[in-house]
Order: sequence, then structure tokens, then C-alpha cells
Amino acid sequence: MSDQEQDKLKQNPSFVLRAIKDVAFEDRPVPKLRDDHDVRVHIAQTGICGSDVHYWQKGRIGDFILESPIVLGHESAGTVVEVGSAVKYVKVGDRVAVEPGVPCRPDTIFAATPPWDGTLSKYYIVAADYTYRLPDHVSMEQGALVEPVAVAVQITKVANIRAGQTVVVFGCGPIGALCQAVAKAYGATKVIGVDVVQSRLDFAKSFGADGVFMSSRAEAGVDAVEHSENVAALIAKKFNLGDGADVVLECSGAEPCIQAGVFVTKKGGTYVQAGMGKENVLFPITTACIRALNIKGSIRYTTGCYPAAVDLVASGKIDVNRLITNRFKFEQAEEAFELVKAGRSDVLKVIIEGVQ
Amino acid sequence: MSDQEQDKLKQNPSFVLRAIKDVAFEDRPVPKLRDDHDVRVHIAQTGICGSDVHYWQKGRIGDFILESPIVLGHESAGTVVEVGSAVKYVKVGDRVAVEPGVPCRPDTIFAATPPWDGTLSKYYIVAADYTYRLPDHVSMEQGALVEPVAVAVQITKVANIRAGQTVVVFGCGPIGALCQAVAKAYGATKVIGVDVVQSRLDFAKSFGADGVFMSSRAEAGVDAVEHSENVAALIAKKFNLGDGADVVLECSGAEPCIQAGVFVTKKGGTYVQAGMGKENVLFPITTACIRALNIKGSIRYTTGCYPAAVDLVASGKIDVNRLITNRFKFEQAEEAFELVKAGRSDVLKVIIEGVQ
Amino acid sequence: MSDQEQDKLKQNPSFVLRAIKDVAFEDRPVPKLRDDHDVRVHIAQTGICGSDVHYWQKGRIGDFILESPIVLGHESAGTVVEVGSAVKYVKVGDRVAVEPGVPCRPDTIFAATPPWDGTLSKYYIVAADYTYRLPDHVSMEQGALVEPVAVAVQITKVANIRAGQTVVVFGCGPIGALCQAVAKAYGATKVIGVDVVQSRLDFAKSFGADGVFMSSRAEAGVDAVEHSENVAALIAKKFNLGDGADVVLECSGAEPCIQAGVFVTKKGGTYVQAGMGKENVLFPITTACIRALNIKGSIRYTTGCYPAAVDLVASGKIDVNRLITNRFKFEQAEEAFELVKAGRSDVLKVIIEGVQ
Amino acid sequence: MSDQEQDKLKQNPSFVLRAIKDVAFEDRPVPKLRDDHDVRVHIAQTGICGSDVHYWQKGRIGDFILESPIVLGHESAGTVVEVGSAVKYVKVGDRVAVEPGVPCRPDTIFAATPPWDGTLSKYYIVAADYTYRLPDHVSMEQGALVEPVAVAVQITKVANIRAGQTVVVFGCGPIGALCQAVAKAYGATKVIGVDVVQSRLDFAKSFGADGVFMSSRAEAGVDAVEHSENVAALIAKKFNLGDGADVVLECSGAEPCIQAGVFVTKKGGTYVQAGMGKENVLFPITTACIRALNIKGSIRYTTGCYPAAVDLVASGKIDVNRLITNRFKFEQAEEAFELVKAGRSDVLKVIIEGVQ
Repeated sequence: MSDQEQDKLKQNPSFVLRAIKDVAFEDRPVPKLRDDHDVRVHIAQTGICGSDVHYWQKGRIGDFILESPIVLGHESAGTVVEVGSAVKYVKVGDRVAVEPGVPCRPDTIFAATPPWDGTLSKYYIVAADYTYRLPDHVSMEQGALVEPVAVAVQITKVANIRAGQTVVVFGCGPIGALCQAVAKAYGATKVIGVDVVQSRLDFAKSFGADGVFMSSRAEAGVDAVEHSENVAALIAKKFNLGDGADVVLECSGAEPCIQAGVFVTKKGGTYVQAGMGKENVLFPITTACIRALNIKGSIRYTTGCYPAAVDLVASGKIDVNRLITNRFKFEQAEEAFELVKAGRSDVLKVIIEGVQ
Repeated sequence: MSDQEQDKLKQNPSFVLRAIKDVAFEDRPVPKLRDDHDVRVHIAQTGICGSDVHYWQKGRIGDFILESPIVLGHESAGTVVEVGSAVKYVKVGDRVAVEPGVPCRPDTIFAATPPWDGTLSKYYIVAADYTYRLPDHVSMEQGALVEPVAVAVQITKVANIRAGQTVVVFGCGPIGALCQAVAKAYGATKVIGVDVVQSRLDFAKSFGADGVFMSSRAEAGVDAVEHSENVAALIAKKFNLGDGADVVLECSGAEPCIQAGVFVTKKGGTYVQAGMGKENVLFPITTACIRALNIKGSIRYTTGCYPAAVDLVASGKIDVNRLITNRFKFEQAEEAFELVKAGRSDVLKVIIEGVQ
Repeated sequence: MSDQEQDKLKQNPSFVLRAIKDVAFEDRPVPKLRDDHDVRVHIAQTGICGSDVHYWQKGRIGDFILESPIVLGHESAGTVVEVGSAVKYVKVGDRVAVEPGVPCRPDTIFAATPPWDGTLSKYYIVAADYTYRLPDHVSMEQGALVEPVAVAVQITKVANIRAGQTVVVFGCGPIGALCQAVAKAYGATKVIGVDVVQSRLDFAKSFGADGVFMSSRAEAGVDAVEHSENVAALIAKKFNLGDGADVVLECSGAEPCIQAGVFVTKKGGTYVQAGMGKENVLFPITTACIRALNIKGSIRYTTGCYPAAVDLVASGKIDVNRLITNRFKFEQAEEAFELVKAGRSDVLKVIIEGVQ
Repeated sequence: MSDQEQDKLKQNPSFVLRAIKDVAFEDRPVPKLRDDHDVRVHIAQTGICGSDVHYWQKGRIGDFILESPIVLGHESAGTVVEVGSAVKYVKVGDRVAVEPGVPCRPDTIFAATPPWDGTLSKYYIVAADYTYRLPDHVSMEQGALVEPVAVAVQITKVANIRAGQTVVVFGCGPIGALCQAVAKAYGATKVIGVDVVQSRLDFAKSFGADGVFMSSRAEAGVDAVEHSENVAALIAKKFNLGDGADVVLECSGAEPCIQAGVFVTKKGGTYVQAGMGKENVLFPITTACIRALNIKGSIRYTTGCYPAAVDLVASGKIDVNRLITNRFKFEQAEEAFELVKAGRSDVLKVIIEGVQ
């Protein structure tokens, strides 16, 4: 009997983070609906996100600290297999994307954020109004990737991207590339992607960016902030941004990008921090003040992002399939996580097929 | 010698509104730059707008009253033939769209709005920073139609159209159809056009709308507001809008559309009044209050609309050529105005070629 | 044994709206906490609101329709007598204002709005995070009146009242007068109250308004909208508002006030509809459009209004006691309702003491 | 003949910054109106601002670089002595506050910012719509201090201070203390001032703050950012701010204050950078991101700030006289500048009387 066949005999196979750097497969009980408004989803596909890997390796992000085992995974789509008595708009058999964050006054339950379990199980329980039906032509893989699209939608929403704006996006990984595509879909005139890896720039150029910029690293002996200011000037010059971009979306979390991002934002413009790296960075605060910048942090998503993301995927405006570079079976989950951890430049989105 | 040849001998042939219902061709002096920042544009194409016709027939719109003759026309493109000494970004020979409204603390000069002259002359003087260079592949006709596109951009800006929203647009004339196309270009999920003329609905469907709705007129004996409420319910039902549209753009100015527009706006949604008809209409104010609607008026455009409009035209996202149904020579200007006044359902945008 | 002594023997005396124009006292069971986050409040004081009277007389407001009996009342303060096991920030014995609207995804429970019971009972169950502790020096009467203050806070929030603005408030009843005081407390430069009753104007002048205006009624033969436009011009002239007020708060619901309100709002200004009267009114829509007004409906309150209202009352910035013109015992509730229904100009806020 | 008498004989005595650290008195020609909309003001009082001293000592702020001599000073009030033919709302003899920044598409003229002359002359030319009449009971000294009040109004406007918010202000110098008072005047519930000098805290407490906090300096061996995080926690605890303040206004420009300011801003809250110190600081960017903060720079003022500031002063809500610690005659201008440069903790606002 194959591993996969064995899985089928199990109740609710789950991929669990037991402690820092300690993951294991467990067979958990089939979860029950918590109230009349819940549904049970049989998970079909789950993408891996940097935060999943971060909890695995470090056990915490900000105030969220791993204190007991949690199931990993939060980018998922699947099929509804049970609905509560008060559920109106989805029914058994519906194929749905699952929104992992459900506000519950005054807290938010968020999949795979301690202490809440994630979606890398056979079954996942979620409030029905946080599932989104997928049209027939949208695959489960696409459904799982609605999540990073929703993250990018929120970033552009925080940035208040508007008609005719110029946008510079630092980072051309999955979130950066999606931000470029979403900004373009929402009317940005000129979208520039910045990265330090040529293959990522090539992908970005073919995916959503109007132009791309290969960022150099500072040479020894050059003041780091001054180098960042020079990079900003080169970007503005190469792409005719005049006094700078209307909007900068920082999706790398790298210190030099954060600095260059502030310098390339025009007077009164908007800079959004979405990438996460070092806790503290050397930051050009006086420039931010004199230019009266709007600097905002973006994290997760808010009401309306998921429907918008489903629409971007279903309408074909964003071809998320192109982001998927590697596919794994459920029982290969740890291998999949190791691949994401390695951070190879040819790996964009890694996705795990659920237990059947 | 033809009329056209004669025009060339003249200094600055102009199409002038002398008094209500009294237009004439005049030869005015070639205008001089008012200061170092001005440019002189040789006008190539000018579209006719409803407001031009309104001034011609009524002599006033709101507080703007015709008290002395003005040149008509404000939707224009042309070639720069003279630049002031301080002008930096445009040069003689540049083909440009002309933004007709130039703020001048504390007033705004607006072409063809009493007491300011319009653009239906051979030459027009404008501040250089209110001209927008046209790429080579954009024609002068397209350049002239940047103006109504900018009007539509402003309407969607006032409405704050965002990702994934549903939008109902009342009216499928040039501004309504452009609003549908711009809303779509800026990420609206579902855009519905409403009109009472089938050919306009057909055009709208092929231009920007995802769906269209033929509105009926109230029958005798039916309460007019109740009829409008029913129309709203039919629109919401036909297009699965649930509790209503996120955004309604009213571009017809017709009383039943205004009423239906309020009723079809969902709780907390946004309704923008852009069309102008009767001064006062019977308005469902209690519904507006209970639903906590945002109702906004939109007129003209603000900073950023023109560049966005040039981009929409130049990128091919909006094919303004399809709006042009009738073309006239400069010396046929009155005939062109008569055609617009007639309000035939097969006439969308009428455009007048400038004096060479 | 007095009526009051008898009430004490009862479990949970309640003032119930059984059907249109049919109210009665009932002894209901002591309500149980619905979950760990709830508290039970012994109600001490309850103000009567126009909407309570409206449900009594008409049985519906908008989509809310009386289909089975409900307890009336929603402006209340009282003492916490029981707390759920998960409640953290309030304890038995705390004196609290009760926020009547509790969002419960995707609905909102709202006291005394069909089908939910109100607060005119001995006991009321509410989520702990919707109770607000009252400082010792704030009386239960003041605590009950936190509710209309929160309504006024929301209206000024919808209006986005800012530093140095001019504000015209139509209506000098409790909500109008409170809006005037709140606008003043939040930095408005000049606040004008408008009414048709001199005694209310006198009160408004002494309460929050910088100036007041006695509005006349249109004479026979004068066009009603034109009369409203004239009233607007007189208000602007009398108080040096120039081209109009930055903000208009309409708290009367009267058609002439709605019209005058639009006319007295300056270009780009904000008009908020808070009063409710006729369903549909003749409305100057073209003026609203040309002036690019922001017209918004305000209803109830949103997150943050209650804490702000408690602060305004506790800090002494708003002396709500001065609004109370009539006090009743619980067993006189119907008499109290009759008084509010009569709409006498000398009656502002009527308040009912709870069962001990 | 005294120095002062001699000054009267001169045409237009001016206090001029000739080069870095090189100031001198010059007699310049009486300036002429540039156009019909200008007025000439006889300056009566001028406050000294940190930026004046900064230009004197360093010759530049950001992109503004001293390349030829400029008159210093920009916080002034005086009497109108000449008006252009198009000026409507002010007349000769009016006592006015002078707004130093006048937008002039596409630039802004700003007094005492290279290359524009400031107000420390006998006469100053300004566009009439940038002068604000002072009521009779407002002194010229108060009129001069309308400028820093307008700066504080802008800071609170950028922060969008609203009803019932908690506000922490870092720095209790003139701008910090004014921000505290303005925040309070605009409805903030709890305003906390932070500084390292006890006398400034005492003043702040008596001026606008509800509470004050003496900030300690980090000890050797303690991580600087960690120290700042601890300071933030102490502030939040001492003043019951829960998860942090709704709004933080940073008016010191000191690195530890910037860090503590970010840490004490609650999730989704707003942090405004108004103080200027080091160009680059170590900044807790991940916290800013995870908390989805709004971080904004504020500089100078925008439309509406000056009228609001005049109102705050004229209404007595802000007693700017209390800020003035030192007064000088015009011929003592350099002495006055030296005093501000010294940065003594007992010096708040220094003001210079104009030439008579």
C-alpha cells in the first residue's frame, strides 16, 4: 500500500510544526464545525509562503510566538464537504478559495499563525463567509494562489494606486511580481520592478512590469545611504520619473531597497513597506519629513481583497500559474519547505497537493 | 479662392458666440503670450461638448453667464507654434492636447466658459504646463478627445473606483461610455451601462460595459419614484449585484435615472452625479441617509486627470476614435453645433477640424 | 405595596412594543448570558429617541419592520451585575454606558430595532466590549445620554469636521444641538444653528452655537426651492460665510431645510443628511453637481464614537444634563412616550428611570 | 541720534544672511508691488524659527541652498501700507499676519528660504490673499506667532487628529507645545508631552498637555533601540494607552524619540515626523510594517492652516504670548539669533520688534 493510499485511510493527515525546526506528519481527528456559520473544506492545493518557513525556522514573527504545535499552511483552495445550518451562499461540492484570516471581535483567527492551526491538513474548518467560490475554469492551484494575489491587492490598496500613476516595486519575487501586475491592472501608467537577480527581472518584465532595473550593491568605502540615494537617482533617470515615483512598493525587506525606495518617492508620494527583513534599518527620516511622504505598512488583507483577487485570477488579468515553479505531493511537504528555505533564485512559488 | 484658402489669409479665424443663439465667424488678432510660461497652439481638432451647445442656446450654466462674446470650444489638440522664454518641457512643433482649465489663484480660467474665450480659433494661448505632448501614434482627433476622457477619469476619481468593485453607469452617451471604459480599465469587476436607446446600449456593450440594461419609462398611474425603485431592483437582480452596486455613476441627468441610481447603490456605497438636466429633482433622501451613502458631484477635472487620460488613449486601452460619428470642417462649425443640438441617438461625438 | 415595590418582586419588568400603537409592561425571564464575552446590565436610566416613537407609531423604519413584540429603548446606562468568564475589562459593580449596536458578522444586533429587544427592561445582556465604564462623577442620566452624543460624534465624523471650518446645523433639537456642541468641541470656527422655534434657538445659542438663524416659511405663491435658496443666501450673508459653509449638518429632515442646506454648502463642501422626514424631497441636484459637493448620509455610530462621547461628557465639554427636560419613572414609560410623540417645542430629551 | 532714529531715515533696513555664519544689516530699496494683487506690509514683529538659525549656521536645508544673500525671518505680522489695484479684502492700515509661503505654479515662494528674501526688513511684499487680518484685541506679537501655530495646525491635519484620540507628542519646545495645545483644541482625549528637560515638561503641562513624561537616556551597554522600545512601553503603561497611542507627533528630531515614537504608536495608528535632526536614523521598520502604521512627514502648512491658526489665537484657545521668553529690538537681531542658537532650555520663542 502506497503512502498516498495510507493517507486516505487516515482521518485528517496534517503537516504540523511541533517546535522550532521540528515538523512532522500527524493524523488529527476530523475537525467539527464550531458553529452554524462554518463549513468544512477538503483542501486540494496549498502554496507555501515565506511566513510559513519563518515560523518553522524561528518560531515567531513579531508578537506571534509558537508555544504549542500548529498545522502549517494558509494559501489554500479546496472543496466544501460539510456546511453549517446557517450557511447560505456556499454548498457541499463547491470549489472555493479559503481566506485564512477571520476577524472575530476583538481578535483575528489567522491560519498557521500561533496559536491557530493552518490549512496543511486534509480538512480545514472556516467561516462560510470567508470562502470564495471559484468559477469552473479556475483550477485549484489558481485558487490556492488567490491568497498571494490578495496580499498584493491589499498592498496596492494601502498605496491607494490610482489612474496614471508611476510605481516602483522593490523585489521581483512572487509578492513583488504580483504587486507589479496588480498595479498595472488597476491603471498605473508605468510600473518598474527592481531586483538583484537577472532571471527574476526577466520574469517580472514578462509578467507585469513596464520596465525593470538591476540594482547594484554598494562598493567598499562608499557610504551605504549615499549609494542608495544614487540608485534612486539612476532609477528615476532611466525611467523618466522626474522628481520621483508617485508610489513605491517595498516588497524585499532589504535595507538598501528601503533606503532607495524612500529616495525615489516623489514629494507628497506614497511608500508602502510590505517586505520584511531586518527589524531595524538606517532610514532617511529627514528626506521623508521634508518631502511630506506617506509611509505605510501593509500586512495581510482587508475586506474586499479576496473577491478582487478571485476576479483578477478568474478574468485572466493575472496568470498566477506562471508563478508556480515547483509542485509537491502532501507527503513531500517537508521537502517543499526545504526548497523554499533554500531561497534559490529560480524558485518562485512552491505548491503542495492535498491528501485525496 | 476657396473659403479654406481665405481662412489661411486671415490672422486668427474664430467661431464666436456673440449672444444667445447667435454665433458667427470672426477674424481676431493673433493672440500674444501673456507671460513667459505661456505657449501658442495652432489648433488642429476640436470636439463639441454639451456645455458648448448649452451656452449657445441658453447663455448660462449655473453662475457662469454670457455677458460679452466668447469663442466656443474646449476639447482640442494642436501644434505648439510659439513658446515663452521660461517654458521648459514643450517646444515649437510639439503636438499637444490642451487642458482647458488653468487654475490661477484664486480663479480658474476655463476655455469657452464666460468670460473666457475657447479654442475654436486658429490660435489659442495656454500655460505650457497645461499642454500634454502626444506620442507620434496618437492622432490630433484622439488628442482632442483626451478632454472627455479626462472628464471620465475625474468622475471615476471622485467615485474612488477600486479593485473588484461593481459599477452601474446611467447614460451611454460619450461621457457614460467613457466612464464605463475607464472604470473597467481601473479594475472594476462588473460595469453595467443603462440607457433608453438600444443602439447606444449596443455601442456601450462593445466599448466598455460588461452588461447593459434597457430602462423602461414609468407607465401612467404608477408612482414615479416607485417605478425608479423597481428599475433599480431589476438591475440588481439581472446582474447579481446583491444589495446593490458599490458605485453608481449618473451621466444622464435624467430624473428617473437619478432616483434609480440612488436605489441601486448599496449601503455605504458611492453615487456620483455627473450628468446635468433639471435643476431640481424628486430625490430619495431617506434612503440615502439610512444607507449612509456617499453622494458626490463631479465637474471638469483635477490635477493628474489629463496625464492619465493621455495614457489611456496612447496605450490603446480606450479607443476614442470609435466615439467619433461626425466630422466637420472649421467653416461648418455652426452646422456641427446644430447636429449636436438635435440630440439624435446615432450621434455620439462630433469633431471640427481646425483652420490650417 | 407600591407599584415600585411590586416591580422589585418581578423578574425582569420590560416595556414592550407588541404591535403598532400597542405597548405594554411585561414580566420577562431574567436573560442569560449568550456566551463568555457577555455581561448583564441592570439598567438605571434610558432616554427616549425619535426612532423608539417611530416604531411605536409606524412599526417600521426602512427595511426594519416590526413582526413580533420587542422591548423598546436603546439609550441606556446601568450597573454590571453579571459577567461572562472571558470578560476582562469590566467587572460586577461597574457603572457603564451601553452601546446598543453590536456588529456580529455579517449582521448588527441593534437594541429596539426589529427583531431585537431594547433596553427598557430591568436587565439587558450585551457584549462586554460594548459597555463603557463611567467615571464616578458622571451620573447614570449622563451615561444614558452618551448615546445621542455618540450619534452626534458620528455625524461630525462623517462630515470630517476639521480645524477652522464653518458649520451650519439645521435643526436645534437634541441631535442638532449636540452636533453644534460637538462641532465646536472639535475645532469648528463658526457654528450656526437654524430652527423655526425661538426657544430652541435660544437654547442652541447657550449650548454650542456661535450664532443662530430663525428660518421663515415660504409664502404662498413663492417657488419653494427659490425660497430655500433665498434662506441659504440670508444665512451666508448674516454670518459672513462667503460662498457658503464648509460643512452643513442636516438634523431636521424637513424638505426646506434640506434644500437650503445644499444651497448654503460651499463649492467642494460637505453636506450630511442625519435628520429623517419625508421619504423623497425636491432636491437641487444640479447645484450639488456643479459645486462638486460631498453629500453623505449618517446613521447610528461606528467604532470609536462611544469612547469619544464618554470623553466629551466626562470632561464636561458637553453638559448633557441641560438637554433633559422631563423625567419619568419606569411605570410611567407610556406617558413618557406620549410626551415625546406630542413634539412640543419645550420638550428636548425625555428620560426614564429604570426599575430598582 | 539713536540707532532707532537712524533706522527711520533709512529706506528699508533689512537683516541679511550674506553667507554661512555671516549676517549684516543692509539698507535695501523700498520694494515695489510685483503685480495688482500684492500688498506692502510694514513689519511689526518677527519670531525666530529654528530654520532661520539653520540657514545662518549651515547655509542649507535639504534642496534649499544659500547661493546669494537673503533677508532672514518668516514669522511676521505688520501693517498694510500699500495695496495693488486688484486687492479686495485688505486695505491700507489693516493689521495682518503674513503667511510666508505663496504657491506660484509650479513653485512656491517661501520667505527666508533660498533664493527668496524673508521678512526681517522694514517692508515686505506679499500677495494680498496671503495676509490675514488680525482682530483689534490680537497684538502684533501674537500675529507673528500665528506662523508656528499654523505649523502645528498642519501637523495635526497631516495626523488627521480626530475625536477622542490619544496623542503622544515628542518634544516640548514651541512646536511640540503648540501641537499639544492644538491637538487638545481639536478634540484629542489625552495628550502626552515627552521631553528630557523638566522645565519644558512643566511648561507643557500648564500649556496643553494632559500629562508629561520625562524621557531617560540609554545607559552604556544597553541596545539603543531596545531602550527606545522600553521607553515606549513605560509611556503606554503610565498613561493607560493600552496597545499604544492613536497618534504620535514627533517634534524633536532626536533618534531615540523617533524610535520610541514608532513603538508607542498602536496598530493602524498614525505617526507624524515634524522634527528634524540627523539625516538618517536607525528605524524599527518591521514594527512599522506589521502594525500597518501610517507614517507621514509634515512640513510648513497648506491651505486653511493660517485661518485656523488666526482663529485659535484670536479666540484665546491658544495663548501664544506664554511662549515668548525673550524680546529684542530690530538692531539686536544678531544677538537674538545667537540666543536661539545657544539652545538654552529656558528659551522658548524669541521675537524681534520691527523698525518703526
